[in-house]
Parts: sequence; C-alpha cells; structure tokens
Amino acid sequence: MNASPGAAVGAIVLTADEAERRGDCGEPVILVRDETTPDDLHGMIAARGIMTARGGKTSHAAIVAVGMGRPAVCGVHDLEFGEGGSLRIAGQQFAAGDIITIDGSSGSVFAGEAPLIEADPDNPYLARILEWADRARDLTVRTNADTPGDARRAREFGAEGIGLCRTEHMFFSDERVPIVQSMIMSDDDEQRRRLLALLRPFQIDDFTAIFREMRGLPVTIRLLDPPLHEFLPNLVDLTLEVERLHQSGHTSPDLEKQLARVMQLHELNPMLGTRGVRLGLEFPDIYRMQASAIMTAAVAVRDETGEPPIVEIMIPLVGFREELRRARRIVTEEVESVLAASDGPPIAYLIGTMIELPRAALTADSIAEEADFFSFGSNDLTQTTLGFSRDDAEGAFLTAYLQDNVLLTNPFETLDIDGVGQLIRIAAHGARPVHPGIKMGICGEHGGDPPSIGFCHEIGLDYVSCSPFRVQVARIAAGQAALRGPHGAGA
Amino acid sequence: MNASPGAAVGAIVLTADEAERRGDCGEPVILVRDETTPDDLHGMIAARGIMTARGGKTSHAAIVAVGMGRPAVCGVHDLEFGEGGSLRIAGQQFAAGDIITIDGSSGSVFAGEAPLIEADPDNPYLARILEWADRARDLTVRTNADTPGDARRAREFGAEGIGLCRTEHMFFSDERVPIVQSMIMSDDDEQRRRLLALLRPFQIDDFTAIFREMRGLPVTIRLLDPPLHEFLPNLVDLTLEVERLHQSGHTSPDLEKQLARVMQLHELNPMLGTRGVRLGLEFPDIYRMQASAIMTAAVAVRDETGEPPIVEIMIPLVGFREELRRARRIVTEEVESVLAASDGPPIAYLIGTMIELPRAALTADSIAEEADFFSFGSNDLTQTTLGFSRDDAEGAFLTAYLQDNVLLTNPFETLDIDGVGQLIRIAAHGARPVHPGIKMGICGEHGGDPPSIGFCHEIGLDYVSCSPFRVQVARIAAGQAALRGPHGAGA
Repeated sequence: MNASPGAAVGAIVLTADEAERRGDCGEPVILVRDETTPDDLHGMIAARGIMTARGGKTSHAAIVAVGMGRPAVCGVHDLEFGEGGSLRIAGQQFAAGDIITIDGSSGSVFAGEAPLIEADPDNPYLARILEWADRARDLTVRTNADTPGDARRAREFGAEGIGLCRTEHMFFSDERVPIVQSMIMSDDDEQRRRLLALLRPFQIDDFTAIFREMRGLPVTIRLLDPPLHEFLPNLVDLTLEVERLHQSGHTSPDLEKQLARVMQLHELNPMLGTRGVRLGLEFPDIYRMQASAIMTAAVAVRDETGEPPIVEIMIPLVGFREELRRARRIVTEEVESVLAASDGPPIAYLIGTMIELPRAALTADSIAEEADFFSFGSNDLTQTTLGFSRDDAEGAFLTAYLQDNVLLTNPFETLDIDGVGQLIRIAAHGARPVHPGIKMGICGEHGGDPPSIGFCHEIGLDYVSCSPFRVQVARIAAGQAALRGPHGAGA
Repeated sequence: MNASPGAAVGAIVLTADEAERRGDCGEPVILVRDETTPDDLHGMIAARGIMTARGGKTSHAAIVAVGMGRPAVCGVHDLEFGEGGSLRIAGQQFAAGDIITIDGSSGSVFAGEAPLIEADPDNPYLARILEWADRARDLTVRTNADTPGDARRAREFGAEGIGLCRTEHMFFSDERVPIVQSMIMSDDDEQRRRLLALLRPFQIDDFTAIFREMRGLPVTIRLLDPPLHEFLPNLVDLTLEVERLHQSGHTSPDLEKQLARVMQLHELNPMLGTRGVRLGLEFPDIYRMQASAIMTAAVAVRDETGEPPIVEIMIPLVGFREELRRARRIVTEEVESVLAASDGPPIAYLIGTMIELPRAALTADSIAEEADFFSFGSNDLTQTTLGFSRDDAEGAFLTAYLQDNVLLTNPFETLDIDGVGQLIRIAAHGARPVHPGIKMGICGEHGGDPPSIGFCHEIGLDYVSCSPFRVQVARIAAGQAALRGPHGAGA
C-alpha cells in the first residue's frame, strides 16, 4: 500500500535502534518492521524510508511518515521475517543490510538500488502548475503547525497562514511538564494561578516565535483542548507502581496523592468528557494565562517588527452558544488588558470556535452570533458524527470494514460527505445569514485531501488548513476544484 | 431536589446493610446517605425511601429510585452527618432510628410521621384522566423492559408493547457469565459457536417468558450492544490481581490469558468502539444465535397460545446503510430457517434499527431502505450529538453547567430539541418519502419525559417507549400533547 509518497533507497535495517545508529552516521537505511509503534520513532526519523508488513494508510507508520515527509510502503503482506535477520519479500530472499528501493507513491518495492530523481521544490514544471493553481483557486491554503519549524517549512511550501496551532504539545517539554503536573494536582485556585504564572513566560516564547515566522499572515491558536489526565501518568501504570511500593514495604504519599487525582480525573470516554471549553470554563485561569500570553507575544512581535501579527484565538469543543459567550468574555478581558497596557499601532484579533461536535454544526446559526470565525475540526466531527473513536476504530472494526467493503473509503482520510459533509453544509447555511462574511475553514486532516478540498470549495469555505507537507497538494487540489466549478456553487 | 416521586415514612438508617436487615424484617426505613453507589443497591431495595446529601435528578440514587418506583429526595445540602449516627437536617438534630417523612414529588422532608395517602392505580380520578388521555392521544406508549416482571408491570400500567428489550443484562446471571466469558476468551470460531449453543437455551427461555407476558402486543428486541470487555473483569483490577499473584510467587496462566484478552479488547473510548452492529458483523455467530433464539421462542409461544407474537428485531448502532443490509441478511437467514422448520400460522416479524448516531439520522433516507422501523435511541444520540459521555458528564462538567446556568435543562432528562431534536426531525423527513409508513418511535429515557413526548407528537412519531413506572405519565403527556395540536403538525 502506498502509505506516504516519495521514493527512497537504502540498506534494510530491522530495528529502530539500528536505523538510528547507522542513519545517524549518514548511511541511507530503510526501516523494515512488522508494524511500528511510538517506540520506533527515533529509528523512523533516522531512516530514509519505512516499510511494514502490517497496517494501511492509517497505521502508525503511515501517519508518522506522512507527517515527517518520509516515503513509506505499508501492509506488505508478502513480507516474512526469518531467523538471524533474514527476510522474504514476495518469495525472494533478503538479509539485513541488503539494498532495496521503495516507492511510497505507488506502493512498489524493488530489489537493489533504483535510480531516483530528487524532489525539487523549485522544479519549474511544479512551479508552473502551482502558479496556475494559485491563479485559479478561491480557497486560501493554511497549515496546521505547532512549532516555529513547522510554520517556516509550511511557509516555504506556500502556506498562507496557520489554521490550527495546538497548544497542548507545548506543555510536554521536560522543563514544563512538572509545572503542568503540579498545576493539575493543585486543589486551590491561588496555587494554580502561581503555577500558571510560571508557564506564562514559556507560552509567550512559543507564540512569539510562531508570530515571527508567520509575519503578515494570520495565525489561529487553539486554547488548551485535551483532558487534564493526559498530562499525568497512565492509571494502570501508576496503580502498579503504588502496589509494588506497598509490596516492598514502602509508601509514597506523593505517588498516592497523584494516583488519587488520576482516579478522580479518570474518564470512561475521555473524548466526550471534560476537555476543550468545558475545561476552560472549569479552570478559567488556564485560558486566561493562554490569552494573555498570546497577546503579550503579539505586542512583542509588533514592537520588534513594526508589523502587528494577525491573531485568531480559537475555543475548542463548543456545543452551546453560552459556552462560547462565556469563554469569549474571559479571553477578551485578558486580551484587552494586555493591549491597554501597551503603546503602538492596534492589533486586530478575532475570537472564534472549532465546529467539531454535531450539535455545534446543527446550531451554528446561534453560535455564529458569538464567533468571528468557524474552523471545522473535521477529525473530531467525524468521530462524533460516526460514533468512531479513531484510536479504537483503526486496527479494529474500521480496518475490517475497509477490507470487507462495508466502507469504501476511510472517513478519516476523505471526508464523509453524506454525514459529516452534510453537517458542515448545515453549519455554513445556518451561520451566513446571521453573520454575513463569517470566515470559515477546515482544519482536520481532510484539509490536505484532494476530494475533501473539492467539497470545501463547492460549499464555499474560505480556507483549508493541512500539514506542511500537504500544502502544495492542497494548492493544486484547490486550483483543480476551482476549474471544475465556481466557489460556493454547492452551498 | 424532588428526585423520584411519591412519599415515604420510616426510621432513618445510615447504611445499606442496616436498611436491608431492618427492612427485610418489615420495618419501614428511609436510607439516608451522602450519596449512593451500586454497592448500596440491596439497601435501596429494602428501604421505603431514599435521601441523599449530594447529587441531583441524574445521580445514582435518583435513577435507581425512579427505576424501582421508590420515592427519593436528593441533594439535601443542609444535611450533615455527625458522630455516632447523629445527623443535622436544616439545623435540626436527628439520630439514626428517628422517624422522618420524605416527599419525592416536592422534594420536602418532614420530621416525624406525616399522614400518607396510598397510591392507588385504580383511583377513579386517575382512571378518568387516563381514559381522556387515551382517547385524545395519537402516540402509542410502549415500555422499556428486559424481564418478564418489568413487562407485566408495564402492561398493568397500560403499556402497549415493548419498545426496547435489551439483551445484554440477560448475559450476566451467575450460570451464564462463565459461558459468556469463555465465549469472549475463545480464539476460534468453532469453539465460540459451541459456547453460543450453550447460551441459546437460556435466551430462548428469556424471550419465551417475555412473549408470553406481552401476548398480542409488539416486542422490540435489541441484539447485543455493549463492547465485549464489559463482560470481563476491569483492567485495573485484573492487572493488580495478576501482580499480587506474581509478588507472592504464583502464576495463573488462565488469569494472564484473561488479562491479555482484556488488554486486547481495551478501548480508549468504548462508547465509540467495537459495539452494536460492529460487534455483530465481527462475530456474526452472536447475532445468529440471538435471532434464532428469538424466533424459536416466538414459535413456542405461538404453538402454546395459538397466537403468534409480534416480533421486532432491532440492530443497534447502525451508521451506514451497508451495515444494516449485512446484519439484516444474517438475521433474516436465521429467522427464516427457524420458521421453515416449524408448522403453524405465519409469524410476522420486522427488522429495524436504532437511530442513535448523528450519521444515522443524517442519512436516514438511505438507511430507511433497509429498515422496517426506526427507534430513536435518544440517550446515545444525545451523547454523540453533544459529545457528552453521560458517565463522565454527570457529577462533573454537566453538573457544573446546570448549577452555573450554562445549560438550563439536563439534556439527558429533556430532549435537546435544537440539537438532538433537529437530527430526529431530519431523520423522519428523510425516511418518510423513501419508505412511506415506516414505523418510528423513541426509546431513550426521554420517552417518559412530558416535554420530550410533546416533541415526539409534534413531529409525528408513532410511539414513545419508557420505563414501566413512567407509562401512565407518558399516556397523560401524549394526551395533553394531542390536545395542544395535531399529530405531526411540526414534522
């Protein structure tokens, strides 16, 4: 299966550690695994390409490879691992160290070294097609980027803004995670505020770097979305750790307190629990800190460059107008307070919401009264509309459904037009009369999928936002869609 | 808070065990707790009434009390527990053993014994109102009943059929759960079929008893719905058990195999995982066994009474027409094979589906081509449309939202007309032209809630289905709705 486009040549390596060791010495290697897990990440980074026996386009290998721009061929059923580093591919014998070529665009695998043409972003043919596409298209193409590096790369590929900057990854670095954990463990508001104040300078740095990269282009920042327990250790692991301590005659009040908090925060279905705006309204100090950090960074970049960043603050998981009204008030207070304390040209900012719950789409006419923009979170909207938890569906019933042709396409790759698409259409219809000119875009993975981009053009969205490596594909797909029919003709 | 209607007088008891001990001796007691959990069930059954300091209408105490028809007052914030069985209610001192009266209809609590009027189902005033309501109403009122006892009680209250008979509870009795667990642990189809064959006689008995009770009235049986891991021990508990065995120098291959299977079946968001029709298509032998047992029971009751039961088989969690088409084929084969092997008058049966996912509602025009009826599963439809996991929302953000007036009503009590209601309307609109006369009803808890019943009348559904104790309320609400406006006027 052609899991991630591009071709690569390299020596077969069978473990991630080996891939890292040899790859880091400059040797081109292809990591060949039964399937990959997050533990293989360092080897995937070091390899030129990835090949797996199991899994398809939505496997870990495929998703990570696409994200890194690494070629991958997945689900090679004819691949068998033998003794002592030997393997058979389609009946032919290979050994670790043998050179192979994989073509992630076609899904082919070749013995030996096939001649490759280097990908050339400045290829004049590509440049000409992109120029045609850009001239034709009505959709703006933005990118999903959480780091300055991603932002820069996407800009090089022609991204015209950030459609989704997730802030949760920013909380996971070594120096921050202890503060985040203490903040979650804290049971009084005063202490929580003190800890959030420690996180604020980090967040200001995060946003400053991103605003610098995106000078002159809009940046949509989503406030904290995941449930708090994602920042704490796993319940089963922690339970075992505490049990083992007990068995060995020790106790740890800290660990036990942490376990109690993990149990308290534990949810049966965390995707449908206390996250997004629900968390923001329960702990408004988190959103306050983030809003204040965003605008402080914007002021700093304005003062440094003389050009005010274009700031869009996004509230996740709204289902009711009243949720957005309250979150908007909290954010506005902080933003205005930062602006009031600074001199210089005004900084325009928008406050909008993800539309990622069926109810939000169905009641978009009412939610639009509080929103400056809508960003369709098509990943989560697919999960709730279809009742598919992506983590549980892929590798389980969804894989079986695709094999048995119950479904003909993976709804996480190509938008389910009849279900999810209908909700997006209902939302767009509902919002426009109430809030003429409301800016609307899509920021799920569908934003980089050509058929889904075609749908976004048809119903007249303003932009699509996709991963940096898909920006050029999206520009071309948006141009093709425009040549097929006018923008918004199917609205 | 008036959590479960009716009034009760009794002595204060503070533990479930005490309630059981004294209640079983015939002494009237009121179980007073901070809040209740499933461990209190035996005490709740033995008590005349229940009072809790915490929780509201959706607390464990309230839901169980309504289900049992027991009066309950919940969320008595003025209730404090002291030393040695003393307690203060609204500043007044009480002790365990003191007599109090609670009125679950108004939420009042009285010191001492207040005079009560016995509830009288044959009360001539009630009978007259019910008669008026029955004459006026267009909606049929069915009941949700999983046992012959519930079915009989509901029939006495005037239920005109079963709208939802869940089959999962039937798998939990002591003699069956080991077979069910072995069936789930089994990794070969042949062995699974043998174990299912052992469950089949139990299921035939279950359905025979229910068909007998419901002679002449329709019975909708939902095939197995929950994820398989619900029938196995909890992951954390089992992990700890295995760890303790290891620590004490023992091993248990059986337990370890079970743990491996529990881990394999473990889901991050089980509500959105492998359950309902997804499970039915992965393990078709389960649905085959159930379909065969249902029709075998129907044949037996027909032969016994001379009157064929009215059988409706319901496939849960359908989101795609193709899922229903395949499940329907599996069920039809079994049903027809049982019928072909029997003599006697024909038994009419319908095969339909729950509409409990937003996608099912949005694509009802297509799903209707495979369905003889739709039953709106408004509990799950509320969960997915709003992105609220009920287990995680109640007692957490939903409780906070209701206290802070972010939401004015609990969407699990009264249908969220703007969101969930809109989906039901879209589904009804979509299905009718494709399948004129398709039977449609609602079987979530909203089926017993008067404002929600009003909505069902307005959009022209055929029936509501509610818990046995709400059947009379539903009849009256359906009559009132009919007097307010014609059936289907808001369709």
